Amino acid sequence: MPQTTAERPRRNEKSRQAILTAALQLAGEVGYTKLSIEAIAARAGVGKQTIYRWWPSKAAVLFDAVLALSTNDAGETTLPDTGDLEADLRTVLHATVRELNDPGYDRSMRSLTVALLEDEGLAAEYRRNLAQRMHEVKKDRLRSAQLAGHVAEDVDLDAAVEMIFGPLMNRWLTRSGPITPEYADTILTTALNGLRPRG
Amino acid sequence: MPQTTAERPRRNEKSRQAILTAALQLAGEVGYTKLSIEAIAARAGVGKQTIYRWWPSKAAVLFDAVLALSTNDAGETTLPDTGDLEADLRTVLHATVRELNDPGYDRSMRSLTVALLEDEGLAAEYRRNLAQRMHEVKKDRLRSAQLAGHVAEDVDLDAAVEMIFGPLMNRWLTRSGPITPEYADTILTTALNGLRPRG
Repeated sequence: MPQTTAERPRRNEKSRQAILTAALQLAGEVGYTKLSIEAIAARAGVGKQTIYRWWPSKAAVLFDAVLALSTNDAGETTLPDTGDLEADLRTVLHATVRELNDPGYDRSMRSLTVALLEDEGLAAEYRRNLAQRMHEVKKDRLRSAQLAGHVAEDVDLDAAVEMIFGPLMNRWLTRSGPITPEYADTILTTALNGLRPRG
Repeated sequence: MPQTTAERPRRNEKSRQAILTAALQLAGEVGYTKLSIEAIAARAGVGKQTIYRWWPSKAAVLFDAVLALSTNDAGETTLPDTGDLEADLRTVLHATVRELNDPGYDRSMRSLTVALLEDEGLAAEYRRNLAQRMHEVKKDRLRSAQLAGHVAEDVDLDAAVEMIFGPLMNRWLTRSGPITPEYADTILTTALNGLRPRG
């Protein structure tokens, strides 16, 4: 049966979604090294050639799958700004804790991390399309707090972002301890107060 | 020619060293996914069976290679303690900066990181044999500073370790910026002072 032109894009979009979903699921099930275009195609119910028409590699498919995931979650591109920096950061960190404890998210992000470590070109694309944007969003919130006098004037905001958001990611990556709201709160308090005794 | 019993261990040790060196070199050259026992054996000039007699997998070989590397470097198991916390941490962080900028170290550590992400059993062994020990060494130095009154009494030392040492590792892992002594100093100052305006 011939397709109308109106049907074709819908069908493409359905295949595209099926491929992205299959890539995420399989990455979680078998890990990045064992992930294959063949298996993604079989799970998505499409031919290998359909995948190769849109993506050059399994890494590229997985990348788009994770990108789609984060775009759904955070249609917003700013962090909450109620004027209370500590409360706002706590909200964001607790959401991150929930995300990292979700098994599907955990496994597909681990697969993506492997892909980024193995493919420098993909890693550069990831930084441009997602990581740098997320960093700037966090930095904007700290800058607003700095202007309001809640963050010291001489604080380097890039370092501050790393200090607040890095430890949770490190603990997740190295599985060195449980990812809990309590740990997030401890990190936040330590970052805000610093290590030195306060006068 | 028959070997004496005294010769055998020496020859074993020489093969073992050749295998570890070959594993590190190849991991740096081709990455973890493409690393193979065959290639390690060929480079080391031993048979595949020699490797399989001592290690169950390529991940295990690479793990021992990196472990040997870190044991050579840090025969010491404490951080410098001159009584000046900031100066001592700066010394250690600058050494880390040099290490992370060494191409051989960079590539083999990236390969190991992939292996740890893909193999949870290996990751657990790595934590037991290396990561936890290094964490405790850093924590000991901060505890000594806390006792000396240079770190506030209520600071959580596990969080403090993450705050000081995590950001360099994150930047290295994600290639989000240059790994420089200046960046290390900024991290250190920010961690010690905290974000809040000081009295």
